[in-house]
Amino acid sequence: MEDIRIAIIGHGFMGHEHEKMLTKMDGIKLLGFSDIDPRQLEDVQEGLRRYSSNEELINDPEVQVVLIAANNNQHHDLVLQAARAGKDIICEKPVAMSLEELDDMVRVTEECGVKFTVHHQRRFDPDFRTAKEVFDSKTLGDVFTIKSSLYGFNGNMHDWHVYIAEGGGMLYDWGVHLLDQILWMMPGAKLKSLYADIRNVINFEVDDYFKIMMRFDNNITAEVELGTYYLTDKMHDKWFERHWFIGGNKGSAYVDGFEPEGKIVRTAGLLQNVGGQRTMTAAGPTRSFGPPPEGKILTEELPQVNTCHENYFENYMKAYHGEEEFLVKIPETRRVLALMDAVRESGRTGKSIDFE
Amino acid sequence: MEDIRIAIIGHGFMGHEHEKMLTKMDGIKLLGFSDIDPRQLEDVQEGLRRYSSNEELINDPEVQVVLIAANNNQHHDLVLQAARAGKDIICEKPVAMSLEELDDMVRVTEECGVKFTVHHQRRFDPDFRTAKEVFDSKTLGDVFTIKSSLYGFNGNMHDWHVYIAEGGGMLYDWGVHLLDQILWMMPGAKLKSLYADIRNVINFEVDDYFKIMMRFDNNITAEVELGTYYLTDKMHDKWFERHWFIGGNKGSAYVDGFEPEGKIVRTAGLLQNVGGQRTMTAAGPTRSFGPPPEGKILTEELPQVNTCHENYFENYMKAYHGEEEFLVKIPETRRVLALMDAVRESGRTGKSIDFE
Repeated sequence: MEDIRIAIIGHGFMGHEHEKMLTKMDGIKLLGFSDIDPRQLEDVQEGLRRYSSNEELINDPEVQVVLIAANNNQHHDLVLQAARAGKDIICEKPVAMSLEELDDMVRVTEECGVKFTVHHQRRFDPDFRTAKEVFDSKTLGDVFTIKSSLYGFNGNMHDWHVYIAEGGGMLYDWGVHLLDQILWMMPGAKLKSLYADIRNVINFEVDDYFKIMMRFDNNITAEVELGTYYLTDKMHDKWFERHWFIGGNKGSAYVDGFEPEGKIVRTAGLLQNVGGQRTMTAAGPTRSFGPPPEGKILTEELPQVNTCHENYFENYMKAYHGEEEFLVKIPETRRVLALMDAVRESGRTGKSIDFE
Repeated sequence: MEDIRIAIIGHGFMGHEHEKMLTKMDGIKLLGFSDIDPRQLEDVQEGLRRYSSNEELINDPEVQVVLIAANNNQHHDLVLQAARAGKDIICEKPVAMSLEELDDMVRVTEECGVKFTVHHQRRFDPDFRTAKEVFDSKTLGDVFTIKSSLYGFNGNMHDWHVYIAEGGGMLYDWGVHLLDQILWMMPGAKLKSLYADIRNVINFEVDDYFKIMMRFDNNITAEVELGTYYLTDKMHDKWFERHWFIGGNKGSAYVDGFEPEGKIVRTAGLLQNVGGQRTMTAAGPTRSFGPPPEGKILTEELPQVNTCHENYFENYMKAYHGEEEFLVKIPETRRVLALMDAVRESGRTGKSIDFE
């Protein structure tokens, strides 16, 4: 099988990441980069092309696939240009800045008969896959809550992400992943309604905090929360990394960190309803809460997962050669986009949104 | 000043707690107990009366104040009886099982000209008062989120709390406190809307899990979450006790435990927007998240508070003698009752409720 010949528009943060990965992957030949800021091309690796414009890259007959890693507000036009040049396309997330943009992109890529998918590599994040494995195994019984969160200490954001016109803000940067993970974790479940808070806590233009409660028709309520300025000194639980909590009627599971640590937790036996007994805690009587007695809490190891971001391109190659389906389907990205619109609307109106 | 002569209806869990406290308090004379189950009176302390019926207690001319610590579904009728006998009344929380019941109680106590208040002793909980002190001090700048939570390992509930007809379930048992604390913490703030999940995870009849998101017109979103079966093995953070998290644009604060521990946390300096830099974390690139460098996280001690449940009755005595106002006002308890109704409605409909 011949290598798939890819060129990348945008040598910013993600452009560099793709460069590191794709120059090492068998089955892909990375041809080079373009960038509207020529200084960004100065550190392109030796042996790769530095196109003088996006147009030159798009019209290079050697290029089969254009990977679009430009600012979010450029995705739409670049997808259209690449499609009309007959190129297959991988677009960074969020795929577009509105449903209208995306629908336009879908129409043109279909008319041009090119392959079109989106880079959602965080479907392969070890923390997410660990949580998903726990969920899929049904070991927690009937799950009622799934919490996914991410907290930072820096407050601010990077580069163009501080500008609303460029598609900045944390909902577009990380929210798109966190929501995509939840939706992809529960295929077939309809999201009935959501209620969201979204804010600019530290940043002037763009959102840097959101909390989203979502009620699904499979009787699960999911919560996604992210803050770039959400602080603790509790380093033992990897606070400033990813967190998952899954609660069911047969136990709970927690997953902390990008390299996840955690446990499945159960109780040795549920409380029987015995009248009149009580335990005293420091702040007065409560019989239902307080430290558990020795031996009451039982733990099991989390499942081991073997997953990395390269898996995204491994799927891409197989799908490109017709051996399987593309992992990331455009209707899935459209659903996430619609969900992010609903999050903003709920944040603005202070009311829940009926979603599906 | 003469002692206030109190008698208590109900020698269950809270009856025993009141017995321990009030037999030791100067300014109050505890006369005795009645209980519809005579076996409950067997361990009433020596020297206290064991009334043969609630009616005998209510009609005892020596009794000035009737403290109602019977099951929730008995509050309404007992308040009416006591009021019509000319007794002043302290009622356990939740004061009633519906707004209609409470309005009826208010009408009759006003007609009879008796004092009527509710036992909300958890306004004096050290964890709550610590969080409130942090909030009131404005040290966190503009606060955007307040989280209050409580998790248990036992699943089940006690005594009559497992029966819906008796007013059981965790929303009535603890939710009433958690919501009262939030509302009382922000006097004057209107609760614009809420969205809630409330469930029977382990219990057949009654709720044992709820999560409530509330948006106030002071631009704060508060969250209250409680689960009786919500597990971890992380004992270092007092998981199975109370938790507060307050986030503002000048820092965060966390408060863990009934005897609270925690910190006020800030960063040594916010991130400047510098293009192109990045930090690698285990699961791939992110520049906004990951462990903070040495010295980046600064902490300050939480304020010290000096508060205990006896303070409730100290206020009661002063207010009874006309020296100050009763801490717990009936319209406040009515608002919490209306909020709990809205929580159930949001849980049932899956939509947010416009509240105030």
